[in-house]
Amino acid sequence: MKVGIIGATGYAGNELVRLLLQHKEAEIVWLGSRSYIDKKYAEVYQNMFRLVDATCLDDNMEALAEEVDVIFTATPQGLCASLVNEEILQKVKIIDLSADFRIKDVSVYEQWYGITHQSPQFIEEAVYGLCEINRDKVPGARIVANPGCYTTCSILTIYPLVKEGLIDGNSIIIDAKSGTSGAGRGAKVPNLFCEVNENIKAYGVATHRHTPEIEEQLGYAAGYPITLSFTPHLVPMNRGILVTSYATLQKEVTYEEVKAIYDRYYGNETFIRVLEQNVCPETRWVEGSNYVDINFKIDPRTNRIIMMGALDNLVKGAAGQAVQNMNLLFGLPEETGLMQVPMFP
Amino acid sequence: MKVGIIGATGYAGNELVRLLLQHKEAEIVWLGSRSYIDKKYAEVYQNMFRLVDATCLDDNMEALAEEVDVIFTATPQGLCASLVNEEILQKVKIIDLSADFRIKDVSVYEQWYGITHQSPQFIEEAVYGLCEINRDKVPGARIVANPGCYTTCSILTIYPLVKEGLIDGNSIIIDAKSGTSGAGRGAKVPNLFCEVNENIKAYGVATHRHTPEIEEQLGYAAGYPITLSFTPHLVPMNRGILVTSYATLQKEVTYEEVKAIYDRYYGNETFIRVLEQNVCPETRWVEGSNYVDINFKIDPRTNRIIMMGALDNLVKGAAGQAVQNMNLLFGLPEETGLMQVPMFP
Amino acid sequence: MKVGIIGATGYAGNELVRLLLQHKEAEIVWLGSRSYIDKKYAEVYQNMFRLVDATCLDDNMEALAEEVDVIFTATPQGLCASLVNEEILQKVKIIDLSADFRIKDVSVYEQWYGITHQSPQFIEEAVYGLCEINRDKVPGARIVANPGCYTTCSILTIYPLVKEGLIDGNSIIIDAKSGTSGAGRGAKVPNLFCEVNENIKAYGVATHRHTPEIEEQLGYAAGYPITLSFTPHLVPMNRGILVTSYATLQKEVTYEEVKAIYDRYYGNETFIRVLEQNVCPETRWVEGSNYVDINFKIDPRTNRIIMMGALDNLVKGAAGQAVQNMNLLFGLPEETGLMQVPMFP
Amino acid sequence: MKVGIIGATGYAGNELVRLLLQHKEAEIVWLGSRSYIDKKYAEVYQNMFRLVDATCLDDNMEALAEEVDVIFTATPQGLCASLVNEEILQKVKIIDLSADFRIKDVSVYEQWYGITHQSPQFIEEAVYGLCEINRDKVPGARIVANPGCYTTCSILTIYPLVKEGLIDGNSIIIDAKSGTSGAGRGAKVPNLFCEVNENIKAYGVATHRHTPEIEEQLGYAAGYPITLSFTPHLVPMNRGILVTSYATLQKEVTYEEVKAIYDRYYGNETFIRVLEQNVCPETRWVEGSNYVDINFKIDPRTNRIIMMGALDNLVKGAAGQAVQNMNLLFGLPEETGLMQVPMFP
Repeated sequence: MKVGIIGATGYAGNELVRLLLQHKEAEIVWLGSRSYIDKKYAEVYQNMFRLVDATCLDDNMEALAEEVDVIFTATPQGLCASLVNEEILQKVKIIDLSADFRIKDVSVYEQWYGITHQSPQFIEEAVYGLCEINRDKVPGARIVANPGCYTTCSILTIYPLVKEGLIDGNSIIIDAKSGTSGAGRGAKVPNLFCEVNENIKAYGVATHRHTPEIEEQLGYAAGYPITLSFTPHLVPMNRGILVTSYATLQKEVTYEEVKAIYDRYYGNETFIRVLEQNVCPETRWVEGSNYVDINFKIDPRTNRIIMMGALDNLVKGAAGQAVQNMNLLFGLPEETGLMQVPMFP
Repeated sequence: MKVGIIGATGYAGNELVRLLLQHKEAEIVWLGSRSYIDKKYAEVYQNMFRLVDATCLDDNMEALAEEVDVIFTATPQGLCASLVNEEILQKVKIIDLSADFRIKDVSVYEQWYGITHQSPQFIEEAVYGLCEINRDKVPGARIVANPGCYTTCSILTIYPLVKEGLIDGNSIIIDAKSGTSGAGRGAKVPNLFCEVNENIKAYGVATHRHTPEIEEQLGYAAGYPITLSFTPHLVPMNRGILVTSYATLQKEVTYEEVKAIYDRYYGNETFIRVLEQNVCPETRWVEGSNYVDINFKIDPRTNRIIMMGALDNLVKGAAGQAVQNMNLLFGLPEETGLMQVPMFP
Repeated sequence: MKVGIIGATGYAGNELVRLLLQHKEAEIVWLGSRSYIDKKYAEVYQNMFRLVDATCLDDNMEALAEEVDVIFTATPQGLCASLVNEEILQKVKIIDLSADFRIKDVSVYEQWYGITHQSPQFIEEAVYGLCEINRDKVPGARIVANPGCYTTCSILTIYPLVKEGLIDGNSIIIDAKSGTSGAGRGAKVPNLFCEVNENIKAYGVATHRHTPEIEEQLGYAAGYPITLSFTPHLVPMNRGILVTSYATLQKEVTYEEVKAIYDRYYGNETFIRVLEQNVCPETRWVEGSNYVDINFKIDPRTNRIIMMGALDNLVKGAAGQAVQNMNLLFGLPEETGLMQVPMFP
Repeated sequence: MKVGIIGATGYAGNELVRLLLQHKEAEIVWLGSRSYIDKKYAEVYQNMFRLVDATCLDDNMEALAEEVDVIFTATPQGLCASLVNEEILQKVKIIDLSADFRIKDVSVYEQWYGITHQSPQFIEEAVYGLCEINRDKVPGARIVANPGCYTTCSILTIYPLVKEGLIDGNSIIIDAKSGTSGAGRGAKVPNLFCEVNENIKAYGVATHRHTPEIEEQLGYAAGYPITLSFTPHLVPMNRGILVTSYATLQKEVTYEEVKAIYDRYYGNETFIRVLEQNVCPETRWVEGSNYVDINFKIDPRTNRIIMMGALDNLVKGAAGQAVQNMNLLFGLPEETGLMQVPMFP
């Protein structure tokens, strides 16, 4: 299976390279990077010294479509939508790590992202690639919209309870915390070491772009439209997303009842680990792996339930999930190349 | 003014020493530490080399009461209550950094802390030393219950809006994040560098001891009992607490209306900075100082308001507030010795 | 191949488990841990949840020898030497990650480590398992003395130049920097997050135990006894060792000449990457992998050469090298289970 | 005393502001910053909210000279030299935190910095402002060349022993480690959080610009020209420089003899703390203060001495030393505004 990556020199791109090098069925044949054209990839990412000999290419999707079976686009919002066309889609599968094809309502996309969608005609057919939920729909897709990092963690954490009607969808508050690799490799003052280290802050309060994506997907599960609060925070660590979410219970439930629901949805999932009672998810336990760790706590005092989830934003939150979608697209066992054991410390 | 510290070798104790060395009216004459009796203080905290010549003493409060004007107890829960008595209180002021005298209902204290209170007879007279709210009551007190770090940040952030009836007290959800110095200097595996670094986790979910303290104080402000959700998180940084809190608005309000309320309550406060519109509090901007930075964001989509606050857990969240209380007790200008400019980076 | 680990709950033990789970020929059948007997391993290391079902056992080496083909001892100094005996060695291979069998002169060992060696009779036959140098000797060994983390990095960085007589062995100064996982998982105040974070310090100056091990091995290469300076430093990061070493050149040399020497020694080594000119080794580029990155800089002003090396102290500096030795012992390709791509960031 | 700062929005500039706000004799009247002209200073550095009301101005040194008594230039190399002229120097004192006037031999400056010096005529009269060594020369100066951060730490650590002829100046090797604030606030990929965090690297090996500055000053002390090795490293922490330096002893000495020398030179110095035997300097113990902590270890095995020093690069390594020089220039007690107690953790 020949693979091309557009946007190979971002952190998610580098993680794709790491995972694909260890994937026995995939061969990377195109490392696209506007910023580093003609530079050796291993000079941009020295961890790849002697492992990747290739030089960065431009992001010519038409040329690329001739050479590969699947294209990953790990690029800024809008780029994938501006490059893709019918001819390309007839030759190659596209797994888009940007948000371009995640939101079905193009006006919602354009409002939250502040850009005009360049190929709205493909939105309908694109499959939202949250494998554990849309597993059946991925194989036939031409475009897989790979979910965002905050989104994957939020949705998987909350999904079973909203689906089962156990919680009030409009009472959901998601307080999320992310490592700094989620902010990308762009040279910006706010992402300098001394600005991020020894600090925690909220950002994008009540306006973050992942909000409508979470609302849409949880709305499907609930069967009614959901409006929720989502607040991301920047944490002084490289990797990891932790979601702490709150919702009002629709009825009195026991630990065992809720645990049974989570187990029913996720008990057979390779990459979702529902933890044991009173064990809180922590990002360190999933680092470097494709796992999502999930747990919950019922608070009878407030009639709320606190649902928590942790994942590695570059793996299950980006590159790992993209590879998982690739496996689904090509009929490979879903966990192929993704069985990395979490690395601690 | 002669000062004694019991529990001088914890992080809060060391911060008290730092602040009091720069306080022109205070002289430290007793550094109590059970764990390091007879050891030079500057060997325990090498930053004090050549600044503190004293040797650690035991925690004999009766002897200490003869020698000093005020005692700070920066000790584990229960110790202050077990040492204090009427005779001592007639000789000396006590500023207790533990939780022993913070909660008026002794049964609530005993339930959440799991210990029997050794001197409940002094709870009633103890003043809850949140200076900005109880400023008038502190001067006459014999015991000041110095508020907790999470508590100070949570209450000050939310207080004006609950006091003004703008939000529903029982809708409050507080998602708090703390640096690791809040966990103390005890040698425990979960606080090792490699366990905390590159990680974020929630802990004490729905059961953390600061919950009833926040509920009690906000309940006074509201005029009705409040039950709320409080979730602390451990962040890989030394200092700082960030509170992100959510509540449902009781009516439609504008930014200007809410800003006016905050300004009315805090506009003249030396140590509370209500930030400008859309600027989120960040812990790095208050580090080393006694400031609390506060701001809010109205979310019309969900009819909620997000209130945020940041402080340095060892200063305004512990030692700084204790010194502020000492200043009030002894009729000094409240900011004496506390005008450290926040240090960045 | 059945594997037992004694000391499985230290950081090196956990890393052994991580690597062996991904090793297709190895099966872990015994997880020994004095501190956590009868506790589920995945409760001690939550990253192993659902991956390791086993419960911690004691460190009965005799019983263990009946069940496995190879024993890894990742234990404090002295323990392996106190457990091993002839009977055990006739049944099983031992790869000792402690220092017990690294130093041939037992009096040097006893002097630097301050303990009496319990089985000096096995020192002679033990093979110093620095695979790139002693590759031929490992296969027949009964005991492999797995080199220390500082040692592996120091020796591999300097070895070719001392072997070729290019530098004066007694002019060598090694200034080494280590991540904190090297200090182990013991609950000690100096290893708490707040003590290590935002700090750098030297320790064990002129007295660190790895000194004689480096001197012995480099002395073999030089053909004469070497006395050198070695200073370790503690760096606020989880993993990684960086060695910056200095030596006086014996003659004038060009970059190309020195590069040719390094290439001659290491050009065919899977796990040693001699970097390109002027690229300094950095620990981030080898994290999670078994690679050592090496480079050098000639300083004609001082007639010195600066030799630099970087590795992951838990992989090539401990567990990875141990697995590499296991592969050699059992005739497997040396890189089996060790081809993890370095993970960045 | 009216003060102007050119380059006020770098990290050293912000630290100057922090210190001068707490200096009872100084008033900041000009905050120059090319990058942020017309922007409120407190928007650039939110820690200064409500403490600094001023707006950033340009770097017009001539206009500034009319308004202030002293100008601090915390600017890139070359800028101060390009702005200064005789007229300005007749009106105002200049304390230059860049390297422009540190090196007496202009050709050495031009070679190492790769720029042409714009006002070599002032080099001769400029005083090298290492207060503890050149205290007597500062008061009469018009230009004070404020020493570099690595330089201050290196020179103060080694000075007494080279001055006393105890060590061979040409045997000196300085292995230095710096926090990341030393790299400045410029938006560059290598200084992003994810690039610095969890990493240590050497840089500028055998070519770093602070080398000739150290060589010149130590050469004065020795009485002969010195060529030495200097290797800086980047450490994942905000502040702090640690110097570990090695030299060959000229004769056999005891601990007491060397200690007596250090005490003779530094015993009366307010800001130099010679530590007790076997206590290594650590950056955490001086953070936020103007102290330099120094100690040494004799290694009879190698006939070397290891000299170690630690300081806060933004205080004693930049802004603090600049204020110390200002105090000397204006006849104030040297420690005015500089008695901050080190902040830990």
